[in-house]
Amino acid sequence: MHDIRRVYLDHSATTPADPRVVEAMLPYLMEKFGNASSVHFFGQEARAAVDRARREVAVLIQARANEIVFVSGGTEANNLAIRGLLAGWLDGSSGDKGHIITSSIEHSSVRGICEELERVGWEITRLPAYEDGIVRTEDVGAALRPDTVLISVMLANNEIGTIQPIEEIGALVQEQRGLGHKNLWLHTDAVQAAGRIPLNVEVLGCDLLSLSGHKLYAPKGCGALYVRRGVRLASQNIGGHQERERRAGTEGVPGIVALGVAAKLARAEMDQRAEHDRGLRDAFESGVSAAIPDIVFNGDRARRLPHLSNISFRFIEGEGLLISLDLQSIAVSTGSACSSGTLEPSPVIRALGRNEELARGSIRFSFGKENTEEDVDYVLEVLPRVVEKLRQLSPLSPSNLREQQIEVLG
Amino acid sequence: MHDIRRVYLDHSATTPADPRVVEAMLPYLMEKFGNASSVHFFGQEARAAVDRARREVAVLIQARANEIVFVSGGTEANNLAIRGLLAGWLDGSSGDKGHIITSSIEHSSVRGICEELERVGWEITRLPAYEDGIVRTEDVGAALRPDTVLISVMLANNEIGTIQPIEEIGALVQEQRGLGHKNLWLHTDAVQAAGRIPLNVEVLGCDLLSLSGHKLYAPKGCGALYVRRGVRLASQNIGGHQERERRAGTEGVPGIVALGVAAKLARAEMDQRAEHDRGLRDAFESGVSAAIPDIVFNGDRARRLPHLSNISFRFIEGEGLLISLDLQSIAVSTGSACSSGTLEPSPVIRALGRNEELARGSIRFSFGKENTEEDVDYVLEVLPRVVEKLRQLSPLSPSNLREQQIEVLG
Repeated sequence: MHDIRRVYLDHSATTPADPRVVEAMLPYLMEKFGNASSVHFFGQEARAAVDRARREVAVLIQARANEIVFVSGGTEANNLAIRGLLAGWLDGSSGDKGHIITSSIEHSSVRGICEELERVGWEITRLPAYEDGIVRTEDVGAALRPDTVLISVMLANNEIGTIQPIEEIGALVQEQRGLGHKNLWLHTDAVQAAGRIPLNVEVLGCDLLSLSGHKLYAPKGCGALYVRRGVRLASQNIGGHQERERRAGTEGVPGIVALGVAAKLARAEMDQRAEHDRGLRDAFESGVSAAIPDIVFNGDRARRLPHLSNISFRFIEGEGLLISLDLQSIAVSTGSACSSGTLEPSPVIRALGRNEELARGSIRFSFGKENTEEDVDYVLEVLPRVVEKLRQLSPLSPSNLREQQIEVLG
Repeated sequence: MHDIRRVYLDHSATTPADPRVVEAMLPYLMEKFGNASSVHFFGQEARAAVDRARREVAVLIQARANEIVFVSGGTEANNLAIRGLLAGWLDGSSGDKGHIITSSIEHSSVRGICEELERVGWEITRLPAYEDGIVRTEDVGAALRPDTVLISVMLANNEIGTIQPIEEIGALVQEQRGLGHKNLWLHTDAVQAAGRIPLNVEVLGCDLLSLSGHKLYAPKGCGALYVRRGVRLASQNIGGHQERERRAGTEGVPGIVALGVAAKLARAEMDQRAEHDRGLRDAFESGVSAAIPDIVFNGDRARRLPHLSNISFRFIEGEGLLISLDLQSIAVSTGSACSSGTLEPSPVIRALGRNEELARGSIRFSFGKENTEEDVDYVLEVLPRVVEKLRQLSPLSPSNLREQQIEVLG
């Protein structure tokens, strides 16, 4: 029944777990099932595995093991980073509010947290990302105020893949600290970037960095937050003493083990994966450019993640294109899976200055290590036909607009 | 190397995943890896699995599927229940504080949340559990105030297994609502009870009920919160629209699938598991009673979970006994794994009115479906010897106390 060829081009939404990752986690589901907080042999066996995974995740971003806090995923990492930092900083002492600088292209979690903070009195500056989808460090500098507590700018965007100048922003934060601005921290959501481009928290200069397992070939349900030594973070889940009081709740050992192995593999295979994905992505983009008129590539095409392509198809709805492609066994997305269910056009594409039509007509194609050249060939065979057909039916197409005008006139 | 016989008697800390659970979740790690929020085939395949698991968990507690919110575990479920309820009730509108009734034997998460709420101005009444470890409904009634917003009492205690009169408390809440006390909700932490005794949320009359996968033979990293239809709950993670806006973050599909299957198996095999565990537990307790003097069983021995036994061994430290047993390949615990790392004697055992010596000398033995009669025989062979040896060395033992006195006198 399942002989149908299926092409999955939605690796930015989620990735399949690597078989090596699954193999490594399996023993921790059954024979090595201990609670890592238990004192006995079973507990210590699990504890050792968690510690090993912590070192592996740390190495991926060049951090120290005790700076890694395991959580349930990227959204929790972002919540813990921002809300945990602010609560730790405020220390429960007062109703003090401050100022936060973020970008206009953040993931819905960071965006949502900032909106929530705004509602309770924090002031938020949302920096533009311009047509190329890249935040400018000088804009960060210009937005800084004495009461700025946090800068939260993602490392790479989840819809268009553009890489943000976190290293420069980190240097700016360092400079500010040198000038006496002590209560200023930098958080970066690296959920899309981790495992795809090299990351070094010392070079980046960030205090908090979020990552998610299922974007880098580990299962859904695990993630990590890097918390620089010395940064005070208030646990958002209250309960046990796990994760050095930074995240209560029984450690999700199998997911943690999986994340560790996935991090190790990502580091070892990063160059080769990037080359592979970029090769397919670039072949795909060349083919699309040659075969389909009236398209716009979204985001800077040089400073972006190697596996991702975002294209607006004029005159048609991305949602319709997605569904038509799905019927042809090709999986893509119109934007973040976390934002699906909304009828709004992508706020990220809108932030690039694109009009609503282009925002609504945008599709994200994201490649991964199991994709092949045959996949690209298949998509290049199907996509132009589907786009053409949808355009023929679309009331937005110029030819149809003309006909409608003729009808009205007639 | 691993031929050593190991006896695991710490099923209240965590359980090994059932092989049938692992088998069911495996496809959702690899070939069926979609993000359940994705629109395409891969996403819908994952969505269908999540929906199926939601129905299975609902059936375990006789709830409706849309009343189940998937979370990362029991601690998160308790946090979301209490903090989500209060935030939903307050609706972000004011600094209103109210009154909460809880028990003195709650898990560290509920205990910790209540302490945190107390710090920000809520008033907390902590009901006694008496020597039998059971909260009295009349005490709940007596503690009720017009500004009582929440009653949070666990279904079964995690250290001594005593089953609390939630059904009676639920009836009391119903009665209060009839008298016009509309803003009153009942939460119960059923993490230890779920899968071990029959639960029916209609009979219990609770509004919120927490459960955790890894206590019922699913992996660590998944759990669920039952939220009665009509109860307003503010998501504690901010981000995407997952779980009907009640818990943001990519659904942990493999863990959710596992929890669903584990719930289904628990329901189908509940009687047989209970009978098995109770048989072993009772044989164990008879053996211990016959072989070891100066012990105290903690908690009512009738109204408790079938798999759990908690015993205080006079004159010795539970921690020392635990370690000695571990050296003999027997895994037990001194209390909640979530509380390990503290040097305090168990607050639960203290709440029964036991003195510090008895609280420090308490050990939890918790049985599970893979335990055998041979396991019990082995423990009954080892435990008396270990206890006797520790007592010989203990300065608290009466004979040693006497010798010390003689020495001092001499």
